[in-house]
Amino acid sequence: MAKSACAPASSPTTQGNDANKQARGFLVHRLNMDSAWTALDVVTQTMVQKAIADPKTVDLEKLSDAIVEQSLKDLSFCKDAGRMCYAVVQAEAQKAATSAFRRNLLTRLQQEFTGREQTRSHSVQEWVCLVTFICSIFDYIKVNDAPLVALVDPIYDCLFRLAQPDALMNEEEVDCLVVQLHRVGEQLEQTNSQRMNQLFYLLRDGFLLQEDLSSMTRLLLLEILEFRASGWTLTNTAHKYYYSEVVD
Amino acid sequence: MAKSACAPASSPTTQGNDANKQARGFLVHRLNMDSAWTALDVVTQTMVQKAIADPKTVDLEKLSDAIVEQSLKDLSFCKDAGRMCYAVVQAEAQKAATSAFRRNLLTRLQQEFTGREQTRSHSVQEWVCLVTFICSIFDYIKVNDAPLVALVDPIYDCLFRLAQPDALMNEEEVDCLVVQLHRVGEQLEQTNSQRMNQLFYLLRDGFLLQEDLSSMTRLLLLEILEFRASGWTLTNTAHKYYYSEVVD
Repeated sequence: MAKSACAPASSPTTQGNDANKQARGFLVHRLNMDSAWTALDVVTQTMVQKAIADPKTVDLEKLSDAIVEQSLKDLSFCKDAGRMCYAVVQAEAQKAATSAFRRNLLTRLQQEFTGREQTRSHSVQEWVCLVTFICSIFDYIKVNDAPLVALVDPIYDCLFRLAQPDALMNEEEVDCLVVQLHRVGEQLEQTNSQRMNQLFYLLRDGFLLQEDLSSMTRLLLLEILEFRASGWTLTNTAHKYYYSEVVD
Repeated sequence: MAKSACAPASSPTTQGNDANKQARGFLVHRLNMDSAWTALDVVTQTMVQKAIADPKTVDLEKLSDAIVEQSLKDLSFCKDAGRMCYAVVQAEAQKAATSAFRRNLLTRLQQEFTGREQTRSHSVQEWVCLVTFICSIFDYIKVNDAPLVALVDPIYDCLFRLAQPDALMNEEEVDCLVVQLHRVGEQLEQTNSQRMNQLFYLLRDGFLLQEDLSSMTRLLLLEILEFRASGWTLTNTAHKYYYSEVVD
């Protein structure tokens, strides 16, 4: 049988294609973003350094409050705040044999988590920071090499909230959702696969049923669906599709 | 941190949900469909039986023409026609040491393939049957245990055609596309992974950019995207999502 060449991948609509290019461009640039530690004020930076060197010299509850406050208002800070917190937690355990910092941190998180719907209604940005911060803590802080299992259900609750129809209309929340799933999805699934299944039912439903999603949201959701289907990774070709600059 | 229950998987819109239920119901019922061999007329049935028992007693070119004709008008027949053809091909090779049936079959397919765009314009059903038949032949007929590599590019050409925007508007064509990918996608990818990548670029583009796709089409496309991402299989939970009857 004769071969016949077939033109690949012509795009259905120019307008749609522009939106798709923009969305994919966003993913590419997100890869190159660094966390901005510099946002932390000098007083707190000094406290962190002292806490790591000699935890007994610092008011660790005050420090954990300062880190939580900063996290709730600064997205680039809260993404990596867990790493800083873990350094303090370890220093306290090893050099002071106490856990005031971690205890206060979790208490504060508990409070913020309880008030999350109010937070969301007065500031989506603060709500997104809260989710990002909890996931960062979960990602970094281990106790006896085990994750903080107490955070699993609260994180799932936050992700379920982000997957509700009204939140799927907000690109900031969708971005937060998929970033957290990239980050801790596999760990969460290992701890409770049933809730992850339910979450992905919800994401497929949202994706298939909600008509008014933006191009960016559709791209982000499709990518995370493929990402999980491939076992929390992307195939090379999918990676190329989502993370390559689109050339005309 | 306290646990809080979170209601899973509530659907964004009732109307959309109905369409989604209908679409998922379709997938469930397709699983239970059997091929309808009975559609073949008695004369041809008898010829097939004689050809398998003693190929020299039958006009094998005429038989292959009859099978192609039947395939082009009967979807349930052409799905499994490859199996029947393979039985005749084997009998001819072993008992008559010739290959008239296979040669004529491939010549006919070549002709039908060349005229596929005309076929499509006068009958989408016949065009869908043609694609299904070629894939069935590719799936079943092996020569020296190897697939008919000559069919790979024609099949890709057909699948690319089915993935064009106008074809994605037709559920019959979308269904054909995903059924063939379920059936021979993995074999095609092993033979030419680059074209499969291009095809999936096109499917993602269609899915993300084309606004007016039906619920059924969106469901079918999402399923095949997840299917390939999982390595040409479905995870248990994805299978449950797509192939479970939806209960209110």
